[in-house]
Amino acid sequence: MSGSERRRPPTIHDVAREAGVSRGTVSRFLNGGHNVSPAAADAVRAAIRKTGYVVNRHARSLITGRSDSVAFLLTEPQEKLFEDPNFNVLLRGCTQALAAHDIPLLLMIAGTPAERRRVMRYVTAGHVDGVLLVSSHTGDPVAEQLMRAGIPVVASGKPIDRSGRTARIAHVAADDRDGARDIVRHLVSLGRRRIATVAGPPDTPGGVDRLAGWREVLAEAGLPAGDELVAHGDYSRDSGRRAAAELLDRTPDLDALFVASDLMARGALTALERAGRRVPDDVAVGGFDDSPAAVAGLPELTTVRQPWDRISSEMVRVLLGLIGGEEPSAVILPTELVRRQSA
Amino acid sequence: MSGSERRRPPTIHDVAREAGVSRGTVSRFLNGGHNVSPAAADAVRAAIRKTGYVVNRHARSLITGRSDSVAFLLTEPQEKLFEDPNFNVLLRGCTQALAAHDIPLLLMIAGTPAERRRVMRYVTAGHVDGVLLVSSHTGDPVAEQLMRAGIPVVASGKPIDRSGRTARIAHVAADDRDGARDIVRHLVSLGRRRIATVAGPPDTPGGVDRLAGWREVLAEAGLPAGDELVAHGDYSRDSGRRAAAELLDRTPDLDALFVASDLMARGALTALERAGRRVPDDVAVGGFDDSPAAVAGLPELTTVRQPWDRISSEMVRVLLGLIGGEEPSAVILPTELVRRQSA
Repeated sequence: MSGSERRRPPTIHDVAREAGVSRGTVSRFLNGGHNVSPAAADAVRAAIRKTGYVVNRHARSLITGRSDSVAFLLTEPQEKLFEDPNFNVLLRGCTQALAAHDIPLLLMIAGTPAERRRVMRYVTAGHVDGVLLVSSHTGDPVAEQLMRAGIPVVASGKPIDRSGRTARIAHVAADDRDGARDIVRHLVSLGRRRIATVAGPPDTPGGVDRLAGWREVLAEAGLPAGDELVAHGDYSRDSGRRAAAELLDRTPDLDALFVASDLMARGALTALERAGRRVPDDVAVGGFDDSPAAVAGLPELTTVRQPWDRISSEMVRVLLGLIGGEEPSAVILPTELVRRQSA
Repeated sequence: MSGSERRRPPTIHDVAREAGVSRGTVSRFLNGGHNVSPAAADAVRAAIRKTGYVVNRHARSLITGRSDSVAFLLTEPQEKLFEDPNFNVLLRGCTQALAAHDIPLLLMIAGTPAERRRVMRYVTAGHVDGVLLVSSHTGDPVAEQLMRAGIPVVASGKPIDRSGRTARIAHVAADDRDGARDIVRHLVSLGRRRIATVAGPPDTPGGVDRLAGWREVLAEAGLPAGDELVAHGDYSRDSGRRAAAELLDRTPDLDALFVASDLMARGALTALERAGRRVPDDVAVGGFDDSPAAVAGLPELTTVRQPWDRISSEMVRVLLGLIGGEEPSAVILPTELVRRQSA
């Protein structure tokens, strides 16, 4: 190949020209998206893809003293990572969103106090610039410890502090309450009148807000919503099976079930099958997440879609903003009802 | 609690006394196990557990300039991590073995050239002290790049270079060939005479050595071992299903199948069921790994146990030795035949 045929690598100028924006806009986008409109960000993203532009992040990190890396920190036991497909989806989305900024992702697991101590030591020693915190439980001390140590952190899901209030920490979450309302309204619209629920743990936003949405819609419709219609799981498949079996024992005439996660819903389907109930004929079942578990067996689940791609890209956007000096913000994203076979 | 009741934290002296070894032995154990006999290492491990001793690694890292962390680097696409339970088992074992040394594990994934570049940049910037390299394929440039950069690295499985020779890199592996011989001998001892195999990819040690073991035993027994009895998969469940279907097409009278991984064997069982073959009556099936996939359905698999706990603890021991200045070594561990329902 002759010299004249060899293309020079694309520069930030090429990206700006292709996107039809100023170089300053591209630069702000690359530094976290501060003051970049969604439309401009989309144009820049498309231009980066088209031109094949790669940030020379190594050169920059030598100047800034940053590690130019981000931790995806799971404060759950390792087994959860492998059992619950939500984590896989979220991990892939965050990896991809960071890749657009040429930033590597480190997965760290802090499911025990000793692991937490080791992770805090590593993170506070400056080996990562920020943390994507993935945890379902409240009272989790990691978020607070990271904040106190001045580490930029964005949580997935609304963090609740020990007193039950939303903690002051940047976060990205789907609208749990609204999603629950949608699917319970759908169950009501099918003519179901004894609608029980398998709720998440009471110290998780999914456990609190999805249950509140269920109660609200049943109250509006004048249908029973007493405690005998509620059982709690811990988001594992097996806990969903046990909770559904308990509900069938307590309320044998239930005709619908709203389950606060797809994985628990798959467990609930096992309990219904063992009890000889047909789905959806005898009992309509609605899930939550639209995770791979929703379609990992028959019947495929009618569920509430969490916008995983947007959740992960927004987590990365907010985190890079924090690293760049912005104030924490909360992003709540709309959900969508997905109708399949189970209801 | 009064001052006199408060226990002082256990020291290295307490560990040495409890273990019945010298302080020097405990110190060498904590620094990687160099010159510590297996019996002494066991005693020290037990004494650490009993006394609750915790290495003050933070204080030490300030002195040594080390990050005191280790990367678990998977050079496969992220999906493999979640599909193949071997990785989960290995990750848990390495996390636990490192925890005994109070060292955090970072999981990094380098399944694409861009991810590889980012990981190399992070690792060579000094953010980790060493790498546990988990990869099945040869021609993987990461091992060589890490060695050239002077990063201590231990591979899981025997690394083969592009010319098919074992690469000069520290590694820990089960004895693939011997394990394959054991299970194929078992199939022969059951009276099977048309024993086909689903092999791993030809650029992996599992693909090469397990196939060689199969061929060797059949040759000894004077049974056919031609290419029509071999199909290759890529260690995914679906590839096992396809390979088994292909073998049934080619050799409808096969009466046994040795499959080079349990996950592929589960796929092969699906193909056999669809073809109306009973297992083990019509076709005996042997797997490899003794991973959770072996018992994740019926029939439970007769298989070859890889000693995962020892593989992970040896990987950590060898890596800490390298970090402490030892020369690379290779550790080959024996396997064990596990009889269950499928053969």
